[in-house]
Amino acid sequence: MRQRNKPWAKEKLADYPQYVIASPDQFKGKWHDVFEKKQPLHIEIGTGKGRFLTGMAKANPDINYIGIELQDSIIVTALDKIIEEEIPNIKLMNVNAEDLREFFEKGEVDRVYLNFSDPWPKTRHAKRRLTFKHFLNIYEDILIDNGEIHFKTDNQGLFEFSLMSFSEYGMLLKYVSLDLHNSDFEGNIMTEYEEKFSNKGNRIYRCEVQFK
Amino acid sequence: MRQRNKPWAKEKLADYPQYVIASPDQFKGKWHDVFEKKQPLHIEIGTGKGRFLTGMAKANPDINYIGIELQDSIIVTALDKIIEEEIPNIKLMNVNAEDLREFFEKGEVDRVYLNFSDPWPKTRHAKRRLTFKHFLNIYEDILIDNGEIHFKTDNQGLFEFSLMSFSEYGMLLKYVSLDLHNSDFEGNIMTEYEEKFSNKGNRIYRCEVQFK
Ligand SMILES: C[S@@+](CC[C@H](N)C(=O)[O-])C[C@H]1O[C@@H](n2cnc3c(N)ncnc32)[C@H](O)[C@@H]1O
Ligand SMILES: C[S@@+](CC[C@H](N)C(=O)[O-])C[C@H]1O[C@@H](n2cnc3c(N)ncnc32)[C@H](O)[C@@H]1O
Repeated sequence: MRQRNKPWAKEKLADYPQYVIASPDQFKGKWHDVFEKKQPLHIEIGTGKGRFLTGMAKANPDINYIGIELQDSIIVTALDKIIEEEIPNIKLMNVNAEDLREFFEKGEVDRVYLNFSDPWPKTRHAKRRLTFKHFLNIYEDILIDNGEIHFKTDNQGLFEFSLMSFSEYGMLLKYVSLDLHNSDFEGNIMTEYEEKFSNKGNRIYRCEVQFK
Repeated sequence: MRQRNKPWAKEKLADYPQYVIASPDQFKGKWHDVFEKKQPLHIEIGTGKGRFLTGMAKANPDINYIGIELQDSIIVTALDKIIEEEIPNIKLMNVNAEDLREFFEKGEVDRVYLNFSDPWPKTRHAKRRLTFKHFLNIYEDILIDNGEIHFKTDNQGLFEFSLMSFSEYGMLLKYVSLDLHNSDFEGNIMTEYEEKFSNKGNRIYRCEVQFK
Protein backbone atom coordinates (compact mmCIF):
# COMPACT_ATOMS: atom_id res chain seq x y z
CA MET A 1 0.00 0.00 0.00
CA ARG A 2 1.42 3.40 -0.89
CA GLN A 3 2.13 5.39 2.24
CA ARG A 4 2.82 8.97 2.92
CA ASN A 5 5.53 9.49 5.47
CA LYS A 6 3.76 10.24 8.76
CA PRO A 7 6.39 10.91 11.41
CA TRP A 8 3.65 11.43 14.01
CA ALA A 9 1.98 8.07 13.37
CA LYS A 10 3.88 6.11 16.04
CA GLU A 11 3.08 8.74 18.63
CA LYS A 12 -0.59 8.77 17.81
CA LEU A 13 -0.79 4.98 18.03
CA ALA A 14 0.78 5.24 21.49
CA ASP A 15 -1.84 7.79 22.53
CA TYR A 16 -4.67 5.25 22.21
CA PRO A 17 -3.71 2.23 24.31
CA GLN A 18 -7.39 1.28 24.61
CA TYR A 19 -7.35 0.52 20.86
CA VAL A 20 -3.72 -0.11 19.94
CA ILE A 21 -1.91 -2.82 21.86
CA ALA A 22 1.68 -1.70 22.25
CA SER A 23 3.20 -4.90 23.68
CA PRO A 24 0.93 -7.68 22.51
CA ASP A 25 3.21 -10.41 23.86
CA GLN A 26 2.01 -9.58 27.37
CA PHE A 27 -1.53 -10.68 26.48
CA LYS A 28 -0.58 -14.04 25.01
CA GLY A 29 -3.15 -16.53 26.31
CA LYS A 30 -5.22 -13.73 27.86
CA TRP A 31 -6.87 -11.97 24.95
CA HIS A 32 -10.34 -12.61 26.31
CA ASP A 33 -9.53 -10.26 29.21
CA VAL A 34 -8.47 -7.46 26.93
CA PHE A 35 -11.90 -7.03 25.36
CA GLU A 36 -15.09 -5.91 27.05
CA LYS A 37 -16.80 -9.20 26.27
CA LYS A 38 -15.55 -12.77 26.12
CA GLN A 39 -16.53 -13.88 22.63
CA PRO A 40 -14.89 -15.40 19.53
CA LEU A 41 -11.74 -13.69 18.27
CA HIS A 42 -11.17 -13.03 14.57
CA ILE A 43 -8.00 -11.41 13.29
CA GLU A 44 -7.31 -9.68 9.99
CA ILE A 45 -3.75 -9.72 8.72
CA GLY A 46 -2.72 -6.74 6.63
CA THR A 47 -5.67 -4.64 7.78
CA GLY A 48 -4.57 -1.55 5.90
CA LYS A 49 -6.84 1.41 6.56
CA GLY A 50 -9.39 -0.67 8.43
CA ARG A 51 -12.55 -0.36 6.41
CA PHE A 52 -13.25 -4.11 6.45
CA LEU A 53 -12.29 -4.50 10.10
CA THR A 54 -14.50 -1.68 11.35
CA GLY A 55 -17.37 -2.73 9.09
CA MET A 56 -17.19 -6.31 10.35
CA ALA A 57 -16.94 -5.22 13.99
CA LYS A 58 -20.03 -3.07 13.68
CA ALA A 59 -21.96 -5.78 11.84
CA ASN A 60 -20.89 -8.47 14.33
CA PRO A 61 -20.86 -7.07 17.88
CA ASP A 62 -20.69 -10.64 19.20
CA ILE A 63 -17.20 -11.15 17.79
CA ASN A 64 -13.94 -9.53 18.86
CA TYR A 65 -11.60 -8.36 16.13
CA ILE A 66 -7.90 -7.62 16.00
CA GLY A 67 -6.41 -5.85 13.01
CA ILE A 68 -2.75 -6.61 12.33
CA GLU A 69 -0.80 -4.22 10.14
CA LEU A 70 2.89 -3.77 9.61
CA GLN A 71 2.94 -0.11 8.64
CA ASP A 72 2.25 2.53 11.29
CA SER A 73 1.46 5.20 8.68
CA ILE A 74 -1.38 3.00 7.36
CA ILE A 75 -2.83 1.52 10.52
CA VAL A 76 -3.17 5.04 11.92
CA THR A 77 -6.03 5.57 9.47
CA ALA A 78 -7.75 2.47 10.84
CA LEU A 79 -7.29 3.96 14.30
CA ASP A 80 -9.01 7.17 13.21
CA LYS A 81 -12.08 5.18 12.14
CA ILE A 82 -12.24 3.36 15.49
CA ILE A 83 -11.86 6.56 17.49
CA GLU A 84 -14.55 8.32 15.52
CA GLU A 85 -17.04 5.49 15.80
CA GLU A 86 -16.04 4.34 19.31
CA ILE A 87 -16.09 0.69 18.33
CA PRO A 88 -15.60 -1.44 21.44
CA ASN A 89 -14.84 -4.84 19.91
CA ILE A 90 -11.69 -3.94 17.95
CA LYS A 91 -8.03 -3.78 18.84
CA LEU A 92 -5.11 -3.01 16.55
CA MET A 93 -1.58 -4.38 16.52
CA ASN A 94 1.21 -2.65 14.60
CA VAL A 95 3.26 -5.85 14.16
CA ASN A 96 4.49 -8.34 11.59
CA ALA A 97 2.38 -11.43 10.83
CA GLU A 98 5.66 -13.33 10.99
CA ASP A 99 5.62 -12.96 14.79
CA LEU A 100 2.04 -14.01 15.55
CA ARG A 101 3.13 -17.01 17.62
CA GLU A 102 4.63 -14.60 20.14
CA PHE A 103 1.25 -12.95 20.66
CA PHE A 104 -1.28 -15.79 20.55
CA GLU A 105 -1.54 -19.13 22.28
CA LYS A 106 -2.57 -22.20 20.26
CA GLY A 107 -6.35 -22.09 19.85
CA GLU A 108 -6.74 -18.48 20.91
CA VAL A 109 -7.83 -17.25 17.48
CA ASP A 110 -11.11 -18.42 15.93
CA ARG A 111 -10.65 -17.16 12.39
CA VAL A 112 -8.07 -15.45 10.18
CA TYR A 113 -9.00 -12.95 7.47
CA LEU A 114 -6.63 -12.12 4.64
CA ASN A 115 -7.79 -9.39 2.29
CA PHE A 116 -5.93 -8.23 -0.80
CA SER A 117 -2.61 -9.41 0.53
CA ASP A 118 0.43 -8.16 -1.35
CA PRO A 119 0.66 -10.41 -4.43
CA TRP A 120 4.46 -10.67 -4.77
CA PRO A 121 4.08 -11.75 -8.39
CA LYS A 122 7.69 -12.83 -8.97
CA THR A 123 8.24 -16.54 -8.37
CA ARG A 124 11.37 -15.84 -6.36
CA HIS A 125 9.25 -13.84 -3.92
CA ALA A 126 6.62 -16.58 -3.46
CA LYS A 127 7.76 -17.13 0.13
CA ARG A 128 6.64 -13.64 1.05
CA ARG A 129 3.02 -14.26 0.06
CA LEU A 130 0.83 -14.43 3.16
CA THR A 131 -0.65 -17.71 1.86
CA PHE A 132 2.74 -19.42 1.53
CA LYS A 133 3.03 -22.59 3.62
CA HIS A 134 5.34 -20.91 6.11
CA PHE A 135 2.53 -18.49 7.01
CA LEU A 136 -0.16 -21.19 6.93
CA ASN A 137 1.89 -22.95 9.56
CA ILE A 138 1.82 -19.84 11.74
CA TYR A 139 -1.94 -19.43 11.35
CA GLU A 140 -2.50 -23.10 12.16
CA ASP A 141 -0.46 -22.70 15.33
CA ILE A 142 -2.64 -19.92 16.72
CA LEU A 143 -6.05 -21.02 15.42
CA ILE A 144 -8.55 -23.34 17.05
CA ASP A 145 -8.77 -26.86 15.63
CA ASN A 146 -10.54 -26.76 12.27
CA GLY A 147 -9.99 -23.01 12.21
CA GLU A 148 -10.64 -21.18 8.97
CA ILE A 149 -8.96 -18.61 6.75
CA HIS A 150 -11.25 -16.33 4.76
CA PHE A 151 -9.40 -14.79 1.86
CA LYS A 152 -10.31 -12.18 -0.78
CA THR A 153 -8.24 -10.70 -3.57
CA ASP A 154 -8.56 -9.32 -7.06
CA ASN A 155 -5.16 -10.72 -7.97
CA GLN A 156 -5.62 -13.77 -10.19
CA GLY A 157 -2.08 -15.06 -9.80
CA LEU A 158 -2.17 -14.77 -6.02
CA PHE A 159 -5.54 -16.51 -5.87
CA GLU A 160 -4.35 -19.39 -8.07
CA PHE A 161 -1.20 -19.75 -6.01
CA SER A 162 -3.18 -19.65 -2.78
CA LEU A 163 -5.67 -22.33 -3.84
CA MET A 164 -2.73 -24.62 -4.61
CA SER A 165 -0.91 -23.69 -1.41
CA PHE A 166 -4.00 -24.39 0.73
CA SER A 167 -4.51 -27.73 -1.03
CA GLU A 168 -0.85 -28.71 -0.71
CA TYR A 169 -1.08 -27.93 3.01
CA GLY A 170 -4.02 -30.32 3.27
CA MET A 171 -6.67 -27.70 3.92
CA LEU A 172 -10.30 -28.12 2.96
CA LEU A 173 -11.83 -25.67 0.47
CA LYS A 174 -15.25 -24.97 1.96
CA TYR A 175 -16.31 -22.06 -0.24
CA VAL A 176 -14.99 -20.44 -3.39
CA SER A 177 -16.30 -17.64 -5.56
CA LEU A 178 -14.54 -16.62 -8.75
CA ASP A 179 -16.63 -13.47 -9.06
CA LEU A 180 -17.76 -12.38 -5.62
CA HIS A 181 -19.58 -9.23 -6.67
CA ASN A 182 -21.77 -11.19 -9.06
CA SER A 183 -22.43 -14.05 -6.68
CA ASP A 184 -25.07 -14.97 -4.10
CA PHE A 185 -22.71 -14.17 -1.24
CA GLU A 186 -24.48 -11.98 1.27
CA GLY A 187 -23.17 -9.42 3.71
CA ASN A 188 -19.90 -8.74 1.91
CA ILE A 189 -18.01 -5.84 3.48
CA MET A 190 -15.62 -4.22 1.08
CA THR A 191 -12.03 -3.32 1.87
CA GLU A 192 -10.34 -0.18 0.54
CA TYR A 193 -8.53 -2.18 -2.13
CA GLU A 194 -11.69 -4.06 -3.02
CA GLU A 195 -13.57 -0.86 -3.70
CA LYS A 196 -10.73 0.54 -5.75
CA PHE A 197 -10.07 -2.52 -7.88
CA SER A 198 -13.67 -3.57 -8.39
CA ASN A 199 -14.37 -0.02 -9.60
CA LYS A 200 -11.63 -0.60 -12.18
CA GLY A 201 -13.58 -3.63 -13.38
CA ASN A 202 -11.45 -6.30 -11.72
CA ARG A 203 -13.14 -9.47 -10.54
CA ILE A 204 -12.97 -10.24 -6.86
CA TYR A 205 -12.05 -13.79 -5.83
CA ARG A 206 -12.94 -15.19 -2.43
CA CYS A 207 -12.52 -18.46 -0.59
CA GLU A 208 -12.90 -20.06 2.82
CA VAL A 209 -10.49 -22.81 3.75
CA GLN A 210 -10.25 -24.92 6.87
CA PHE A 211 -7.36 -26.62 8.65
CA LYS A 212 -7.91 -30.34 9.13
CA MET B 1 -24.67 -30.95 -26.63
CA ARG B 2 -27.44 -30.35 -29.13
CA GLN B 3 -27.79 -33.35 -31.38
CA ARG B 4 -29.48 -33.90 -34.63
CA ASN B 5 -31.26 -37.21 -34.83
CA LYS B 6 -28.99 -39.55 -36.76
CA PRO B 7 -30.71 -42.90 -37.11
CA TRP B 8 -27.72 -44.27 -39.01
CA ALA B 9 -25.21 -43.40 -36.26
CA LYS B 10 -25.37 -46.72 -34.41
CA GLU B 11 -24.81 -48.61 -37.63
CA LYS B 12 -21.85 -46.52 -38.62
CA LEU B 13 -20.24 -47.00 -35.21
CA ALA B 14 -20.66 -50.76 -35.68
CA ASP B 15 -18.95 -50.56 -39.07
CA TYR B 16 -15.63 -49.47 -37.53
CA PRO B 17 -14.75 -52.02 -34.84
CA GLN B 18 -11.07 -51.05 -35.15
CA TYR B 19 -11.98 -47.66 -33.67
CA VAL B 20 -15.23 -48.16 -31.78
CA ILE B 21 -15.24 -50.83 -29.09
CA ALA B 22 -18.69 -52.38 -29.11
CA SER B 23 -18.42 -54.54 -25.97
CA PRO B 24 -15.78 -52.86 -23.84
CA ASP B 25 -16.38 -55.18 -20.86
CA GLN B 26 -14.56 -57.94 -22.75
CA PHE B 27 -11.33 -55.93 -22.64
CA LYS B 28 -11.40 -55.20 -18.93
CA GLY B 29 -7.83 -55.68 -17.68
CA LYS B 30 -6.54 -56.14 -21.23
CA TRP B 31 -6.62 -52.69 -22.79
CA HIS B 32 -2.95 -52.75 -23.56
CA ASP B 33 -3.59 -55.55 -26.07
CA VAL B 34 -6.25 -53.55 -27.87
CA PHE B 35 -3.86 -50.83 -29.01
CA GLU B 36 -0.95 -51.17 -31.39
CA LYS B 37 1.52 -50.13 -28.70
CA LYS B 38 1.66 -50.73 -24.95
CA GLN B 39 1.85 -47.22 -23.50
CA PRO B 40 0.00 -45.05 -20.96
CA LEU B 41 -3.76 -44.89 -21.30
CA HIS B 42 -5.66 -41.59 -21.00
CA ILE B 43 -9.43 -41.40 -21.23
CA GLU B 44 -11.68 -38.45 -21.95
CA ILE B 45 -15.18 -38.55 -20.56
CA GLY B 46 -17.81 -36.72 -22.58
CA THR B 47 -15.62 -36.54 -25.67
CA GLY B 48 -18.28 -34.93 -27.81
CA LYS B 49 -17.16 -34.47 -31.41
CA GLY B 50 -13.59 -35.47 -30.65
CA ARG B 51 -11.53 -32.40 -31.47
CA PHE B 52 -9.56 -32.53 -28.23
CA LEU B 53 -9.14 -36.30 -28.32
CA THR B 54 -7.84 -36.41 -31.88
CA GLY B 55 -5.61 -33.37 -31.33
CA MET B 56 -4.09 -34.93 -28.23
CA ALA B 57 -3.60 -38.31 -29.90
CA LYS B 58 -1.74 -36.71 -32.80
CA ALA B 59 0.38 -34.54 -30.49
CA ASN B 60 1.18 -37.48 -28.17
CA PRO B 61 1.73 -40.66 -30.21
CA ASP B 62 3.29 -42.28 -27.13
CA ILE B 63 -0.03 -42.26 -25.27
CA ASN B 64 -3.17 -44.29 -25.99
CA TYR B 65 -6.51 -42.51 -25.78
CA ILE B 66 -10.05 -43.64 -25.27
CA GLY B 67 -12.93 -41.24 -25.84
CA ILE B 68 -16.07 -41.99 -23.88
CA GLU B 69 -19.32 -40.45 -25.03
CA LEU B 70 -22.91 -41.25 -24.20
CA GLN B 71 -24.57 -40.06 -27.39
CA ASP B 72 -24.11 -42.02 -30.58
CA SER B 73 -25.18 -39.11 -32.78
CA ILE B 74 -22.29 -37.04 -31.36
CA ILE B 75 -19.50 -39.59 -31.08
CA VAL B 76 -20.04 -40.46 -34.73
CA THR B 77 -18.48 -37.10 -35.62
CA ALA B 78 -15.41 -38.03 -33.55
CA LEU B 79 -15.31 -41.29 -35.50
CA ASP B 80 -15.28 -39.37 -38.79
CA LYS B 81 -12.18 -37.45 -37.68
CA ILE B 82 -10.37 -40.66 -36.71
CA ILE B 83 -11.24 -42.38 -39.97
CA GLU B 84 -10.11 -39.43 -42.04
CA GLU B 85 -6.80 -39.04 -40.26
CA GLU B 86 -6.18 -42.74 -39.60
CA ILE B 87 -5.14 -42.14 -36.01
CA PRO B 88 -3.83 -45.39 -34.52
CA ASN B 89 -3.74 -44.53 -30.80
CA ILE B 90 -7.45 -43.77 -30.27
CA LYS B 91 -10.45 -45.90 -29.47
CA LEU B 92 -14.01 -44.77 -28.82
CA MET B 93 -16.62 -46.13 -26.46
CA ASN B 94 -20.30 -45.18 -26.79
CA VAL B 95 -21.06 -45.79 -23.10
CA ASN B 96 -22.04 -44.05 -19.88
CA ALA B 97 -19.30 -42.86 -17.49
CA GLU B 98 -21.45 -44.36 -14.76
CA ASP B 99 -20.38 -47.83 -15.91
CA LEU B 100 -16.62 -47.34 -16.20
CA ARG B 101 -15.84 -49.91 -13.49
CA GLU B 102 -17.27 -52.59 -15.79
CA PHE B 103 -14.74 -51.71 -18.46
CA PHE B 104 -11.52 -50.94 -16.60
CA GLU B 105 -9.54 -52.75 -13.93
CA LYS B 106 -8.15 -50.75 -10.99
CA GLY B 107 -4.99 -48.98 -12.17
CA GLU B 108 -5.63 -49.54 -15.85
CA VAL B 109 -6.18 -45.86 -16.63
CA ASP B 110 -3.34 -43.34 -16.24
CA ARG B 111 -5.30 -40.11 -16.54
CA VAL B 112 -8.86 -38.84 -16.87
CA TYR B 113 -9.79 -35.77 -18.92
CA LEU B 114 -13.04 -33.92 -18.38
CA ASN B 115 -13.74 -31.08 -20.79
CA PHE B 116 -16.74 -28.79 -20.65
CA SER B 117 -18.83 -31.33 -18.81
CA ASP B 118 -22.53 -30.56 -18.63
CA PRO B 119 -22.87 -27.97 -15.83
CA TRP B 120 -26.22 -29.06 -14.34
CA PRO B 121 -26.61 -25.65 -12.71
CA LYS B 122 -29.55 -26.49 -10.47
CA THR B 123 -28.53 -27.56 -6.97
CA ARG B 124 -30.92 -30.50 -7.06
CA HIS B 125 -29.01 -31.84 -10.09
CA ALA B 126 -25.57 -31.56 -8.47
CA LYS B 127 -25.28 -35.35 -8.34
CA ARG B 128 -25.27 -35.48 -12.12
CA ARG B 129 -22.16 -33.33 -12.45
CA LEU B 130 -19.22 -35.43 -13.60
CA THR B 131 -17.13 -33.99 -10.75
CA PHE B 132 -19.60 -35.03 -8.04
CA LYS B 133 -18.06 -37.35 -5.44
CA HIS B 134 -19.93 -40.36 -6.81
CA PHE B 135 -18.06 -39.96 -10.11
CA LEU B 136 -14.74 -39.15 -8.42
CA ASN B 137 -15.09 -42.49 -6.70
CA ILE B 138 -15.50 -44.22 -10.05
CA TYR B 139 -12.45 -42.47 -11.51
CA GLU B 140 -10.38 -43.33 -8.45
CA ASP B 141 -11.35 -46.98 -8.84
CA ILE B 142 -10.02 -47.26 -12.39
CA LEU B 143 -7.01 -44.90 -12.15
CA ILE B 144 -3.45 -45.72 -11.12
CA ASP B 145 -2.42 -44.63 -7.63
CA ASN B 146 -1.94 -40.86 -7.58
CA GLY B 147 -3.77 -40.68 -10.89
CA GLU B 148 -4.89 -37.28 -12.11
CA ILE B 149 -7.98 -35.61 -13.50
CA HIS B 150 -7.41 -32.74 -15.92
CA PHE B 151 -10.47 -30.57 -16.18
CA LYS B 152 -11.43 -27.57 -18.33
CA THR B 153 -14.64 -25.59 -18.49
CA ASP B 154 -15.93 -22.12 -19.16
CA ASN B 155 -18.71 -22.61 -16.62
CA GLN B 156 -17.88 -20.65 -13.47
CA GLY B 157 -20.41 -22.40 -11.26
CA LEU B 158 -19.28 -25.85 -12.33
CA PHE B 159 -15.64 -24.92 -11.79
CA GLU B 160 -16.31 -23.56 -8.29
CA PHE B 161 -18.33 -26.65 -7.41
CA SER B 162 -15.63 -28.92 -8.79
CA LEU B 163 -12.79 -27.26 -6.84
CA MET B 164 -14.78 -27.81 -3.65
CA SER B 165 -15.74 -31.36 -4.61
CA PHE B 166 -12.11 -32.29 -5.36
CA SER B 167 -11.00 -30.76 -2.05
CA GLU B 168 -13.76 -32.46 -0.07
CA TYR B 169 -12.70 -35.76 -1.65
CA GLY B 170 -9.16 -35.14 -0.38
CA MET B 171 -7.57 -34.58 -3.78
CA LEU B 172 -4.52 -32.41 -4.30
CA LEU B 173 -4.84 -29.33 -6.54
CA LYS B 174 -1.62 -29.42 -8.57
CA TYR B 175 -2.43 -26.74 -11.12
CA VAL B 176 -5.13 -24.17 -11.57
CA SER B 177 -5.66 -21.43 -14.13
CA LEU B 178 -8.55 -19.01 -13.88
CA ASP B 179 -7.94 -17.70 -17.40
CA LEU B 180 -6.30 -20.40 -19.46
CA HIS B 181 -6.15 -18.50 -22.74
CA ASN B 182 -4.24 -15.65 -21.10
CA SER B 183 -1.89 -17.88 -19.14
CA ASP B 184 1.54 -19.42 -19.62
CA PHE B 185 0.04 -22.84 -20.23
CA GLU B 186 1.59 -24.36 -23.33
CA GLY B 187 0.25 -26.88 -25.79
CA ASN B 188 -3.42 -26.32 -25.05
CA ILE B 189 -5.64 -28.22 -27.47
CA MET B 190 -9.08 -26.71 -27.74
CA THR B 191 -12.32 -28.66 -27.62
CA GLU B 192 -15.33 -27.76 -29.76
CA TYR B 193 -17.02 -26.10 -26.80
CA GLU B 194 -13.84 -24.30 -25.84
CA GLU B 195 -13.55 -22.72 -29.25
CA LYS B 196 -17.18 -21.70 -29.27
CA PHE B 197 -17.31 -20.22 -25.78
CA SER B 198 -13.92 -18.54 -25.81
CA ASN B 199 -14.96 -16.87 -29.07
CA LYS B 200 -17.94 -15.50 -27.17
CA GLY B 201 -15.51 -13.94 -24.71
CA ASN B 202 -15.91 -16.48 -21.89
CA ARG B 203 -12.92 -17.24 -19.73
CA ILE B 204 -11.66 -20.79 -19.71
CA TYR B 205 -10.87 -22.38 -16.33
CA ARG B 206 -8.53 -25.34 -16.02
CA CYS B 207 -7.16 -27.49 -13.22
CA GLU B 208 -5.19 -30.65 -12.58
CA VAL B 209 -6.04 -32.62 -9.46
CA GLN B 210 -4.51 -35.79 -8.07
CA PHE B 211 -5.90 -38.62 -5.96
CA LYS B 212 -3.94 -39.20 -2.80
C1 LIG C 1 -2.37 -4.51 -0.51
S1 LIG C 1 -2.65 -3.95 1.12
C2 LIG C 1 -4.35 -4.35 1.43
C3 LIG C 1 -4.93 -3.61 2.58
C4 LIG C 1 -6.37 -3.96 2.96
N1 LIG C 1 -6.47 -5.36 3.44
C5 LIG C 1 -7.33 -3.74 1.83
O1 LIG C 1 -7.82 -4.75 1.26
O2 LIG C 1 -7.62 -2.59 1.47
C6 LIG C 1 -1.73 -5.14 2.05
C7 LIG C 1 -1.41 -4.70 3.46
O3 LIG C 1 -0.79 -5.77 4.17
C8 LIG C 1 0.22 -5.25 4.98
N2 LIG C 1 1.18 -6.33 5.25
C9 LIG C 1 1.95 -6.94 4.35
N3 LIG C 1 2.72 -7.87 4.95
C10 LIG C 1 2.39 -7.88 6.24
C11 LIG C 1 2.85 -8.60 7.37
N4 LIG C 1 3.80 -9.53 7.23
N5 LIG C 1 2.28 -8.35 8.56
C12 LIG C 1 1.34 -7.40 8.69
N6 LIG C 1 0.86 -6.67 7.66
C13 LIG C 1 1.39 -6.90 6.45
C14 LIG C 1 0.79 -4.11 4.17
O4 LIG C 1 1.47 -3.18 4.99
C15 LIG C 1 -0.45 -3.52 3.52
O5 LIG C 1 -1.01 -2.49 4.29
C1 LIG D 1 -21.11 -30.03 -23.06
S1 LIG D 1 -20.60 -31.38 -24.01
C2 LIG D 1 -18.84 -31.10 -24.22
C3 LIG D 1 -18.25 -31.90 -25.35
C4 LIG D 1 -16.72 -31.76 -25.53
N1 LIG D 1 -16.00 -32.30 -24.37
C5 LIG D 1 -16.32 -30.33 -25.78
O1 LIG D 1 -15.69 -29.74 -24.90
O2 LIG D 1 -16.57 -29.83 -26.90
C6 LIG D 1 -20.65 -32.70 -22.81
C7 LIG D 1 -20.68 -34.09 -23.43
O3 LIG D 1 -20.61 -35.05 -22.38
C8 LIG D 1 -21.45 -36.14 -22.72
N2 LIG D 1 -21.80 -36.83 -21.47
C9 LIG D 1 -22.55 -36.32 -20.47
N3 LIG D 1 -22.70 -37.21 -19.48
C10 LIG D 1 -22.01 -38.33 -19.87
C11 LIG D 1 -21.81 -39.61 -19.28
N4 LIG D 1 -22.36 -39.91 -18.10
N5 LIG D 1 -21.04 -40.50 -19.93
C12 LIG D 1 -20.50 -40.18 -21.14
N6 LIG D 1 -20.68 -38.99 -21.74
C13 LIG D 1 -21.42 -38.08 -21.13
C14 LIG D 1 -22.62 -35.50 -23.42
O4 LIG D 1 -23.30 -36.40 -24.24
C15 LIG D 1 -21.94 -34.38 -24.21
O5 LIG D 1 -21.57 -34.79 -25.50
